[in-house]
Amino acid sequence: MASVVTTQLPGTNYLLLALNLLAACTTSVLSFQFISARQAQPSTAGITYKTYYFNQKIDQFGFAEDSTYKQRYLISDDHWKKPGGPILFYTGNEGDIALFCNNTGFMWDVAEEFGAMLVFAEHRYYGESLPFGDLSFSDPKHLNYLTSEQALADFAVLLRHLKGTIDGAQNSPVIAIGGSYGGMLAAWFRMKYPHVVVGALAASAPIWLFEDLVPCNSYYEIVTNDFKKSGPGCSESISNSWAAINRMAETGDSLLWLSNAFHLCSPLKSREDVAAFKGWLSETWVNLAMVDYPYPANFLEPLPAWPIQVVCKYLKNPKCGDKELLQNIFQAVNVYYNYTGNAECLNISQTSSGSVSDLGWSYQACTEMVMPLCSDGINDMFEAQPWDLQAYSDECYKQWGVRPRDTWITTMYGGKNISAHSNIVFSNGGLDPWSSGGVNENISDTLVAIVIPEGAHHLDLRSNNAYDPKSVLQARALEIQYMKRWIEQYKANKN
Amino acid sequence: MASVVTTQLPGTNYLLLALNLLAACTTSVLSFQFISARQAQPSTAGITYKTYYFNQKIDQFGFAEDSTYKQRYLISDDHWKKPGGPILFYTGNEGDIALFCNNTGFMWDVAEEFGAMLVFAEHRYYGESLPFGDLSFSDPKHLNYLTSEQALADFAVLLRHLKGTIDGAQNSPVIAIGGSYGGMLAAWFRMKYPHVVVGALAASAPIWLFEDLVPCNSYYEIVTNDFKKSGPGCSESISNSWAAINRMAETGDSLLWLSNAFHLCSPLKSREDVAAFKGWLSETWVNLAMVDYPYPANFLEPLPAWPIQVVCKYLKNPKCGDKELLQNIFQAVNVYYNYTGNAECLNISQTSSGSVSDLGWSYQACTEMVMPLCSDGINDMFEAQPWDLQAYSDECYKQWGVRPRDTWITTMYGGKNISAHSNIVFSNGGLDPWSSGGVNENISDTLVAIVIPEGAHHLDLRSNNAYDPKSVLQARALEIQYMKRWIEQYKANKN
Repeated sequence: MASVVTTQLPGTNYLLLALNLLAACTTSVLSFQFISARQAQPSTAGITYKTYYFNQKIDQFGFAEDSTYKQRYLISDDHWKKPGGPILFYTGNEGDIALFCNNTGFMWDVAEEFGAMLVFAEHRYYGESLPFGDLSFSDPKHLNYLTSEQALADFAVLLRHLKGTIDGAQNSPVIAIGGSYGGMLAAWFRMKYPHVVVGALAASAPIWLFEDLVPCNSYYEIVTNDFKKSGPGCSESISNSWAAINRMAETGDSLLWLSNAFHLCSPLKSREDVAAFKGWLSETWVNLAMVDYPYPANFLEPLPAWPIQVVCKYLKNPKCGDKELLQNIFQAVNVYYNYTGNAECLNISQTSSGSVSDLGWSYQACTEMVMPLCSDGINDMFEAQPWDLQAYSDECYKQWGVRPRDTWITTMYGGKNISAHSNIVFSNGGLDPWSSGGVNENISDTLVAIVIPEGAHHLDLRSNNAYDPKSVLQARALEIQYMKRWIEQYKANKN
Repeated sequence: MASVVTTQLPGTNYLLLALNLLAACTTSVLSFQFISARQAQPSTAGITYKTYYFNQKIDQFGFAEDSTYKQRYLISDDHWKKPGGPILFYTGNEGDIALFCNNTGFMWDVAEEFGAMLVFAEHRYYGESLPFGDLSFSDPKHLNYLTSEQALADFAVLLRHLKGTIDGAQNSPVIAIGGSYGGMLAAWFRMKYPHVVVGALAASAPIWLFEDLVPCNSYYEIVTNDFKKSGPGCSESISNSWAAINRMAETGDSLLWLSNAFHLCSPLKSREDVAAFKGWLSETWVNLAMVDYPYPANFLEPLPAWPIQVVCKYLKNPKCGDKELLQNIFQAVNVYYNYTGNAECLNISQTSSGSVSDLGWSYQACTEMVMPLCSDGINDMFEAQPWDLQAYSDECYKQWGVRPRDTWITTMYGGKNISAHSNIVFSNGGLDPWSSGGVNENISDTLVAIVIPEGAHHLDLRSNNAYDPKSVLQARALEIQYMKRWIEQYKANKN
């Protein structure tokens, strides 16, 4: 614990709501996006946390690389009942840990009820936890220690350190909590280190979105269904838009018209530009599906409640002519990118702007985290795009000098064969495309699936909100029930 | 499966009976020993196996090192009932896999009853499975991939390959079997990869001989008890021998006498020589305890049944004068090193002769496998030697350029907190010093301990023998019962 900074959460804090793990088509696999959002009704105001740094081995699995890096972690113990009060441990994912800390309202909401200490551990290669500083992303050699296994080992070593050094924590049961990739890490942490965590809450964790465990087209079908349900003609309009764009791309004049119609900051000029434009649109629809929350939330640009319904108001007429259809598409996209009306133009590289987080995940997607996605243009509203591992691999090699190992995650973590494990709650939102790769049915009495039909991406991890649908309230209640059970089990085993 | 060699087991085959994981005192920690032995009553004659090689990633946990090495493995499918007959998978430990294959008679004995395929997988950096050929042991960089985690990942990847490519093996349940360090690997394999193996038989696996999980002096106390029980005056004679040797070391003349009395190939000349001599004696007593089998077995030199009883016949008079006592000690040691009477002289570097296997384990003991051993000279018959991690670490750094990480194994594999796991049988021999670090009491209905009071080091993994004590027959019967249960569970889950 080198340095300590006490931080007061702001009244309105920035939320990481959603994360676009993989882009719309295989060729744009290397663009990812974080979406920061301002929380509508922060319940965490006034709660404080402290920032710490812990020296972790850069290579947990070897001895030749002996140096260490400073892993950041945050602790809030305002409500902790020591000795022995539980530790709720956020298994940090691909981003700055402060985002997750400030924005996993569920943990803050239940801290008092559990008498719990909250710990948020940053994932190596993200935020401030850079093993080689500015060089961390410079080449495959420096990136070599960016894996889920290393991250899990960090968590285990960190927790040993915390329990060994924090007075009253020696006998504290630890529960892993995470969302999205962080949810995958929470589940895997329980699977691989059940001696460290008594259970895990894995929210919107697509642990089965690997190889052929689930159909690769489910992801885009869920997005399509979200639009289908949100207004007549909506998904058809988007479905029809691709051909319209392709027709507009045939002449320079109509391409200019398209660029103007979408108020693009840089006009489309080449086939590649048009492909990027379509990729940007696809990502927009996917992002909307992930963050289709029941109350207003402020994104990079603010969004209304149930944003897809608002978007769909512009997409009622799928059979109009190309120009009218595309003008409608622009209005729809404009809800997402320019709800305030302040944007002067739309930037199609915006959803893949290069932050360190994007870089890190891009590398992970090119090594371990190979999630096959595909669309057929029939059962979904996207252009047909088969899953092409070879093209994906080639793109990875071009970008990072590494090739993905698509069978590794299932070899390591068991794929669908996980029934030997215990004490994991998998929650999934019915609106969330990532639920396609989630555990949506109970595997055993202690490997439990919770489905939130009206939920988008890990809605259950967000703070309580007056507009929360009943299903998410029920989900949170059930999650709390299981967490309490794990703690009771731990205490019973101790005695 | 690059190349295939069919091998006929010889009528009398060489057994790896015992393995001296750590030497007698901390300063000689880097000397280890394999003992090869000829089996008395081979039951494996006529059984054949084939040799294969599989390309494994040198680094299972990173992407910068992309090259592969050829892992050797052996298969016997003479009794395999396909499709779906079980696979008994030997998790190879620190030595040539052919030794384990030829000498784990238990697996051969039960193959027919189980309709099982036998697979023996060589541990990386041993036998022919050298990641960098002759350079494998050249420096910390080349040794970097010699860890238990990499070995377990090799096993998981190999089994995926086998089940994916061997016709009829897709739905074969796999049981991990191993002895000594191989037993630790079998247990850890089930803990970390329960989706790959339905259960594990971990014979004489000292998984708790880390940190302070068990008292560091138990190991030498067990050796002492073996000698105490095997003849009056026996352990006292050894206990008294150290001071006698120290007195003899005070003058050059008596040192020469000592060298002659022990028929040493090289006379003792320095304090270091005397220390090495005492270390060699200690190792000899430890080795005898490990291989104190109830029937004759041929080691590097042949040994009689219950060899400690034979040794103790020479050690009935602990209170005689120094010279007489040491002459008796020589007679005792001579049973171990020169039972045939063919040896012209005794070589005190013999128990630490440098084979590749010794090298590999020496590195592993200097990185992950830090097993604290100590003696006090009061409750045991050895010279007092406290556990000194710093000295151990310094010695490791001198030898290998790495420092041990003594808290890693328990962080990784859970120490005593393993109750979340299932389907592991831990067997331990009461005569075996390694049982001090073993699981000797049931942890749960499915984590079961079997104690074999008359057993030395993994006696249960050896072939049936007419002189087997009842306790080992009962142990094997129980092991078979559990293995059958795991297979039934697997089948029930499939249906």
